[in-house]
Amino acid sequence: MNQSSDDARAAFAGRAGLGATVAETIDALATIGRGDDGGVTRVAWSPELFAAYQWMGDAMRALGLEVAIDAAGNLVGRWNTGTGAPVVLGSHLDTVPSGGAYDGAFGVVAAAHAVRTLQEEGIRPERPVWIVAFMDEEGTRFGSALFGSRAFVGDDVTSFGDRTDARGVSLRDAMREAGFDFERVAEAAAVERIAAYLELHIEQGPVLEAEGLDIGVVTTVVGLRGYRVRLRGQANHAGTTPMALRRDALAGAARIALELRGFARARDGLTANVGRISVEPGGANVVPGVADFTIDVRAATDDGIAELERAVEEIVTRVASEERLEAELEPTFALAPVALDPGLVETVQRAAAAEGASFKRMPSGAGHDAMLLARHVPSAIIFVPSRDGVSHAPEEYTSPHHVERGMRVLAASLRQILEEK
Amino acid sequence: MNQSSDDARAAFAGRAGLGATVAETIDALATIGRGDDGGVTRVAWSPELFAAYQWMGDAMRALGLEVAIDAAGNLVGRWNTGTGAPVVLGSHLDTVPSGGAYDGAFGVVAAAHAVRTLQEEGIRPERPVWIVAFMDEEGTRFGSALFGSRAFVGDDVTSFGDRTDARGVSLRDAMREAGFDFERVAEAAAVERIAAYLELHIEQGPVLEAEGLDIGVVTTVVGLRGYRVRLRGQANHAGTTPMALRRDALAGAARIALELRGFARARDGLTANVGRISVEPGGANVVPGVADFTIDVRAATDDGIAELERAVEEIVTRVASEERLEAELEPTFALAPVALDPGLVETVQRAAAAEGASFKRMPSGAGHDAMLLARHVPSAIIFVPSRDGVSHAPEEYTSPHHVERGMRVLAASLRQILEEK
Repeated sequence: MNQSSDDARAAFAGRAGLGATVAETIDALATIGRGDDGGVTRVAWSPELFAAYQWMGDAMRALGLEVAIDAAGNLVGRWNTGTGAPVVLGSHLDTVPSGGAYDGAFGVVAAAHAVRTLQEEGIRPERPVWIVAFMDEEGTRFGSALFGSRAFVGDDVTSFGDRTDARGVSLRDAMREAGFDFERVAEAAAVERIAAYLELHIEQGPVLEAEGLDIGVVTTVVGLRGYRVRLRGQANHAGTTPMALRRDALAGAARIALELRGFARARDGLTANVGRISVEPGGANVVPGVADFTIDVRAATDDGIAELERAVEEIVTRVASEERLEAELEPTFALAPVALDPGLVETVQRAAAAEGASFKRMPSGAGHDAMLLARHVPSAIIFVPSRDGVSHAPEEYTSPHHVERGMRVLAASLRQILEEK
Repeated sequence: MNQSSDDARAAFAGRAGLGATVAETIDALATIGRGDDGGVTRVAWSPELFAAYQWMGDAMRALGLEVAIDAAGNLVGRWNTGTGAPVVLGSHLDTVPSGGAYDGAFGVVAAAHAVRTLQEEGIRPERPVWIVAFMDEEGTRFGSALFGSRAFVGDDVTSFGDRTDARGVSLRDAMREAGFDFERVAEAAAVERIAAYLELHIEQGPVLEAEGLDIGVVTTVVGLRGYRVRLRGQANHAGTTPMALRRDALAGAARIALELRGFARARDGLTANVGRISVEPGGANVVPGVADFTIDVRAATDDGIAELERAVEEIVTRVASEERLEAELEPTFALAPVALDPGLVETVQRAAAAEGASFKRMPSGAGHDAMLLARHVPSAIIFVPSRDGVSHAPEEYTSPHHVERGMRVLAASLRQILEEK
């Protein structure tokens, strides 16, 4: 399956350093944790992730950066050319199980290429530039998504310590095994010292590809409401119960799913999803008496979220009543939309234009470390296209042309920030 | 849990014989196999079922009937008062796990009460009357529903021999353990020798109760088509994939379920059910890429079945195309509608009228042993109301008034048949 840490270290010993192109560097890094299906597996606190840290750390040291891993497991490379508040280029090196080569890694690799580009141009910034690979952005192992960036911005993460992975290992113990002390995570807080945050990431959606664009200039990260719905009707014999006398829980769920879809379709930028469903008793010849399903709705603005909340409540209540079903609607998850810094977004847009890239302003439908940074410092996110919109799978791909374009826009944005500030 | 065979035999030793009312006899019989939840469990070939055979056999012997168990495990009581082709009153004593006290048992118990009623009136029929409790009507243990009546009508059941129950015991071995020889099942064929078949059963549906009627005079047993449907779209991130670019397999399944429901609702006597559904990958934040579900459609006529077949094919094909999904539609089960004998149906209706019972002619939405008998000899089915339409559950119930009414209509029908023939 995956290479062991020792194998990985041996394979890359003496090969540190960036490739000629961003795509070459991504390909080299993706061999750490690559499985038989072509997917990359580097979950939080794993030997594979630390092998990637070592490789990336060596590459950054080769550029003259000071490299350290902070108390929360974030890999930090510091280009200490000047004084003052640093500009941070960040993303992550952890992956979902059997994930792609680009999600996260692209942003870290491209940040290093951007620094090299500026160095080759002879630029000596008056303030430091940090490259940060945040720990456990994905959260698949402990359900502790964005752990590293939470700690970086000073959020309280103590509740995560006792969470366990599938084998019963707690985050606290996994950290100890990797040489970290969970009690000292708060020492990673550093956001107060920095000036700005830039994150380059694959879109993980189909919009840029569909519109033939090079770059997404992200203006907001969408907010999210999650629900669990349970509808109760009456399980009955599918042959002996006339249609008019049924209380079919699945029919209610079907109507709700389709009405929500219709609501979101009719309004720009909203999404609605029913991703999980089960019915009881589940016999082919039994009218479903119970249906359980999830709802996930997203919008880029607080108004959009409020509109979706009202729609979910109205549709579930009305359909349940019309279908003579009892409904339980349980909110399970809430994230507010995050508006990125208008000035920095403008800087990114000018950089894209200056690089000759085609681009559009767009929201991000997925969460990123930038969501947390944006609450503290001016932040921006830059997208490049994802082939078929696919991510979190071995098929995840962005062309060498687009990853290079993305890196150039990141470098140009950084150059402008350094010149302005 | 359930009483063991020995306990059950001991409990009923010396208590053989029918109660004063049909309801009392049903209550007594229901103690054999009763579990903690109040449900009755007497699956095919089990000690509980044979304890019920013993009890019912004793009760029939007390009426002067000759009692035997045939080569297919059918319990047969013969009131041999005359010669000629017998009239058979039948149903079954086996149950689903944790089933009700009435499904099947009512028909056998009421048949014995009907014979006793005729005996008390001094009637000495010129032709024999048989009471038959068919083996394994439910089919829950081996998937061999209607086993006993199949053998009784001479159908080939050899393919059932190697079917196994949940513990891996084959039907062949279960029969051997119970003292039967699977190779001799064909010896149970007896339908050629009989003149008519009458089955009294609970409705297992809500129609009679809803309309406040005592008796259902069944005209047909509905036919059935079962399907398994698989829709394939594209699994995608629920946040980053715009609504217009989704290929949501669950949305397709929801539309098909609702369109089928609308089709069946708009036409008299048709039913359609989606009773089982699952989606992949099944994450709350992932657009479903695959949906698997079942379709069960029923009609009382060949034309109705053909209409439903066309509708299923048209709806699945059109919705899949409109939703940009790939569809597999796999037929899994087919049963033709069975029209009962018009003359015998008329006899039952006259008997109901003569007994002062309110009644309606109606189809049966569930299958019964009579479906098989009806292909060979004039057959009829008589329904009594089911409270809330519930069956196959401990809550299954029919009032003492209605079970007595049903028995009287059965006795009157039998009396008319014996007088006519």
